Amino acid sequence: MNAGQSLRLLRERKPLVHQITNYVVMNETANATLALGALPVMAHAREEVEEMVGLADALVINIGTLSPPWVEAMIAAGRAANARGVPVVVDPVGAGATGYRTETAKRILTEVDVAVLRGNAGEVATLLGVSAEVRGVESIGAGGEPAELARDAARALAVVASVTGPVDHVSDGERVAKVANGDAMLATVTGTGCMSSAVTGCFLAVAASPFDAAVEALVAFGVAGEDAARDAKGPGTFHANLYDALAALDPATLDARAKTE
Amino acid sequence: MNAGQSLRLLRERKPLVHQITNYVVMNETANATLALGALPVMAHAREEVEEMVGLADALVINIGTLSPPWVEAMIAAGRAANARGVPVVVDPVGAGATGYRTETAKRILTEVDVAVLRGNAGEVATLLGVSAEVRGVESIGAGGEPAELARDAARALAVVASVTGPVDHVSDGERVAKVANGDAMLATVTGTGCMSSAVTGCFLAVAASPFDAAVEALVAFGVAGEDAARDAKGPGTFHANLYDALAALDPATLDARAKTE
Amino acid sequence: MNAGQSLRLLRERKPLVHQITNYVVMNETANATLALGALPVMAHAREEVEEMVGLADALVINIGTLSPPWVEAMIAAGRAANARGVPVVVDPVGAGATGYRTETAKRILTEVDVAVLRGNAGEVATLLGVSAEVRGVESIGAGGEPAELARDAARALAVVASVTGPVDHVSDGERVAKVANGDAMLATVTGTGCMSSAVTGCFLAVAASPFDAAVEALVAFGVAGEDAARDAKGPGTFHANLYDALAALDPATLDARAKTE
Repeated sequence: MNAGQSLRLLRERKPLVHQITNYVVMNETANATLALGALPVMAHAREEVEEMVGLADALVINIGTLSPPWVEAMIAAGRAANARGVPVVVDPVGAGATGYRTETAKRILTEVDVAVLRGNAGEVATLLGVSAEVRGVESIGAGGEPAELARDAARALAVVASVTGPVDHVSDGERVAKVANGDAMLATVTGTGCMSSAVTGCFLAVAASPFDAAVEALVAFGVAGEDAARDAKGPGTFHANLYDALAALDPATLDARAKTE
Repeated sequence: MNAGQSLRLLRERKPLVHQITNYVVMNETANATLALGALPVMAHAREEVEEMVGLADALVINIGTLSPPWVEAMIAAGRAANARGVPVVVDPVGAGATGYRTETAKRILTEVDVAVLRGNAGEVATLLGVSAEVRGVESIGAGGEPAELARDAARALAVVASVTGPVDHVSDGERVAKVANGDAMLATVTGTGCMSSAVTGCFLAVAASPFDAAVEALVAFGVAGEDAARDAKGPGTFHANLYDALAALDPATLDARAKTE
Repeated sequence: MNAGQSLRLLRERKPLVHQITNYVVMNETANATLALGALPVMAHAREEVEEMVGLADALVINIGTLSPPWVEAMIAAGRAANARGVPVVVDPVGAGATGYRTETAKRILTEVDVAVLRGNAGEVATLLGVSAEVRGVESIGAGGEPAELARDAARALAVVASVTGPVDHVSDGERVAKVANGDAMLATVTGTGCMSSAVTGCFLAVAASPFDAAVEALVAFGVAGEDAARDAKGPGTFHANLYDALAALDPATLDARAKTE
């Protein structure tokens, strides 16, 4: 892992990150991408997703407010990304809450070669077939240890599993990295999980491997969360500070601030 | 009315509030819900709304950027909510501005058993069949006294009518409560009306009655608006402060700060 | 040009600006419109766009997250606007990035009488048939001088061309105005280009001509950007400040602060 080096590359190359995401967070993930130093582009029409992803350095698929035309576009974009070697992040928002979300997330994982699956414990456990409790889009509880969950999901689903929560766990099926950066205030703003998926997409475009990208992204986003919390008076000022903090992330100190194992 | 007690319950139980709302405010209403202490979930696909609302403690339907597939989902979700005893808030954004909005709002009120109708005077007057002037989604003027309008609408439409404006009026057809909390800055940010509907949904999940929920929600949201205005320099900082203020609402002082009659 | 006078009129008349825009920026452009002093309304359903635009003082069409039903609504609204003398702004977001965007932007320009085309150099060059480099929705480079590009586009497309960048160029085919207001921080927040199109719509409703409206809008938005940057700590606080600054724009000093040629 070399989060500082990846961040330096990211700001130099300004990778284009194509995001097919949900209505709730679209502005947020675009702004997080831009604040970090990459370029976001949102496009969801079946008519253009394949062409757009061909211009992109990474694709982020997020099922937070899915509907059939969007799902078709996600699959089409994912396949086009695979054909062109563009790495894909999937955020299975709310998998486990409804059958439609669970089935769609599974379908994407089957039809698209996914580099990183970024979700909370309940979502990832659902996709692994392990019992989990999901309330709406919140993970309430998932069976077993999160480190094991990440490793098992990585193996079973052939992805890098990036399972976020108070402490995050990332696994490629062999290694498991634990990331303890972040702040409790991240849970008070909607879409911070989705933002971490977008940031993962940014790092995927520059990191040495999907595993490194997933870990580095959570370190960078977590450190920004810590900085944003410093003089926040609540979720609103924290939210504004979060973009400031992403833009102010210092490649020279990022790795020293990583709380990883 | 016991706004403090409801707020305490809300933060303890964290009710899930399913929102089928408009593209403009979706992020805002999710963040307001979360800041207050409840859990938002946005889902609009016909394929999942009935299942999602079955997990929810309240449903908020908002027609701010409607289109036929969304309207079908709103109706389906509303009926499923009724079948399962999940209370429903309707926000008839822009009723009176176009025939499509007026007809859709009426159709929802006919096909769904609505606990609280939260709108501005022009929207509610339109649905009552009283002459009103609506410009886009702004109420310019509505015939008659707002207290009467609220009471008449509550009776005619068999809802708790929550008519907001510089001073708000809530009626169950018998009682009329006047809520004078709030700040003029609320009108400078888009979606604050929609946020008050979302907050009404949050209180519906915990309050003693829909009437109490509607009044308590407007008190809580209004008090947060007052706090947010305190050191705001304009609509942007006010908007950020508003989430801080919702999160900082103190159950112990909330009722004392209510400006109700 | 008399930006101060137009701003005064705008705040007095509060024109209704109908916006059919993209999911990413909808909240932002609504808030920018409101902060400036006009009234936004978002409506995109084929069932209501013609009626809605009939109530409006200007129409803004923005193709940032287009799909077939939205394109049909844009065309229908544009034609209805033309029939009723409501001026139309078009923002061809991402034209040049995909064929679908380029073709859609061209189709709108053919089927609708457009008062102002507001885009970056790459987008406008694409529509003029000049070689350009567009990455996602960012203009990387466009052949030729921007002043010439604006004039040529204005002539060829029979619009006022408002080509924004570090320095903006507006032309009606004869005159070319250069606007150097603004701040580099505007590029760190998503949707500021879209906001400048919305602000152009606001000024179109009150200015002496589309050329004046386009120039005045860029002066006003640029001055607000300068004010917002003053004590911003990054893109997040800049974004909040931007609405404060739009609301605080002073008609009495606006023209003196214009950096125009």
